[in-house]
Amino acid sequence: MFTNMVHALWQQFPTINRKLNDLTQYLATTVHSGNAEIDQQVTGLLTSGGKLLRPGLFYMFAQLGPVQDAKRQRAAAAAIELLHVATLIHDDVLDDAELRHGQPTLQVRHGNKTAIYTGDFLFTSYFDEILKATDSHAEIQSANDIMRFILAGELNQLALNFDPQPTVTDYLTEIEGKTARLFGFAMKFGVAISKGTSSEAKVAQQIGIALGMAYQIRDDILDYVANPSTATKPVRHDLREGVFTLPLILASQNEPDWFAQRLQDQQHLSDDAIQTITQRVIDSNGPKRAEQLAQQYTEKARSLIATLPEPLATQLTALVSQLLVRHA
Amino acid sequence: MFTNMVHALWQQFPTINRKLNDLTQYLATTVHSGNAEIDQQVTGLLTSGGKLLRPGLFYMFAQLGPVQDAKRQRAAAAAIELLHVATLIHDDVLDDAELRHGQPTLQVRHGNKTAIYTGDFLFTSYFDEILKATDSHAEIQSANDIMRFILAGELNQLALNFDPQPTVTDYLTEIEGKTARLFGFAMKFGVAISKGTSSEAKVAQQIGIALGMAYQIRDDILDYVANPSTATKPVRHDLREGVFTLPLILASQNEPDWFAQRLQDQQHLSDDAIQTITQRVIDSNGPKRAEQLAQQYTEKARSLIATLPEPLATQLTALVSQLLVRHA
Repeated sequence: MFTNMVHALWQQFPTINRKLNDLTQYLATTVHSGNAEIDQQVTGLLTSGGKLLRPGLFYMFAQLGPVQDAKRQRAAAAAIELLHVATLIHDDVLDDAELRHGQPTLQVRHGNKTAIYTGDFLFTSYFDEILKATDSHAEIQSANDIMRFILAGELNQLALNFDPQPTVTDYLTEIEGKTARLFGFAMKFGVAISKGTSSEAKVAQQIGIALGMAYQIRDDILDYVANPSTATKPVRHDLREGVFTLPLILASQNEPDWFAQRLQDQQHLSDDAIQTITQRVIDSNGPKRAEQLAQQYTEKARSLIATLPEPLATQLTALVSQLLVRHA
Repeated sequence: MFTNMVHALWQQFPTINRKLNDLTQYLATTVHSGNAEIDQQVTGLLTSGGKLLRPGLFYMFAQLGPVQDAKRQRAAAAAIELLHVATLIHDDVLDDAELRHGQPTLQVRHGNKTAIYTGDFLFTSYFDEILKATDSHAEIQSANDIMRFILAGELNQLALNFDPQPTVTDYLTEIEGKTARLFGFAMKFGVAISKGTSSEAKVAQQIGIALGMAYQIRDDILDYVANPSTATKPVRHDLREGVFTLPLILASQNEPDWFAQRLQDQQHLSDDAIQTITQRVIDSNGPKRAEQLAQQYTEKARSLIATLPEPLATQLTALVSQLLVRHA
């Protein structure tokens, strides 16, 4: 019997859906830390029915080139998801996030120490899969570059946390490093592994970055507008951690003094302060104005997608419509 | 004017000393996280006059083969030190160690979050240097394998922490992963980069592992016998963290019940308990008996070193005598 373990998003694309099913089973075999309990936890994270967005987008672009090597593609797709999950694990250690896909995070169950080394361990699994996916020194280098880019983005974000006068430019740089670049890498890598042209690789990366920017902005909007009682992730979490995202930044442009006063020296905001600030962000149309910027990135992605050959262009257009849902 | 920034240990070998001086300056240029303050901190760690033991041993074995490419050797030596420092940074986050080479650790100054991402960032610097050092897929793979081995060792150690009946076998497996394998890798990599023979590489690795085992056991003995008022690292630190090392394990073989009772369910031992247990370990000749095992590994290393060509054999023999000083 065929059991579909993959997110409903992919059911409209039977080939990709099948590959992601294979990938899910493969991912379960990639983790061998020598500690059965940790392996089980990590396998749970890797196969828990997340959207597998980055590997899915990788597979879509891996259709472009002439070389179709299923094993190398699977290793590359696995690498991308492993890197994503490794950074999530370290992100959870840091943020004391209590929910990730609605389950207790690794460090809640096993302590910070274990979670840090587990994330580290997954970085080596990432490189293992990269080395299975490609013999090209340049591609291995670019796989290391993307990891460095993401981590520099995280360090950059930390340096900006609790900055009482956050700017749109800082925010955009931050989310490019944290999210958009990995989208860009996943799609570019799809072209590279299938030996597509370098101009296809370039367009793929540009689409990925635009898509990733729109995706992250919408996620940050959701953090302000989501209903705490139905959300699967903790809400108002960014604000609590001193991460001031686009809705707040845009709202604060209307009344910089009001926001600067409340964010000044607030290493950790009280629940009351969080409620007051959240309401002010919404009243000042922060989410709506952030949505306009998300829309610009979405349009950029769409117009680049239109230059791609069929059926990829139509498939991606459909996917983007479902993925990038307006929240404001 | 020539300023020697390298530990006195290396002054007896002018060629190695010069290479390590170059390396120290080179290491200062390898860290570019985009955050000046972090770069400065990490550069401090990399160039603070530590023994540079692993790169030094790498350089000694890199004399063996016929290919002498100074740039590739320097990149390989840098990689080895970067991996070592990255794991130290994550180790410090975990252990709340307050001293490392007598200076406040990164996370004391900048918080756990920054230290975790800085360690992660250094892993990418490690791979950058590995990719500069070699084009060989097999060598890149072995560089990833050693990182995985170290992290599996750390995870393994965590799983065994606070185990009230620790065994010698568990301990030896643990320190092999945590310390000895990187020594083995450094020396084997020296042979590989200089294109020595595969049998030379094998002997180099065996010497490295034996040396690393002896070195770690002696370090663990020191944790029991060092005088807290003169030590540059915190003493009785392992015991405090639930890491039960060889002196305690061997002492507990004499009176398993006494130790099992005191270690049972002791997530964190009181200062009094630590003092009582430490005294009992010393009274039961735990350090002396651990020293005997260290001596066995030292002898194994010495007899393998004797099979090496001159002047390497004589140089290494001298180094081992100075490095592996008896503490009990």
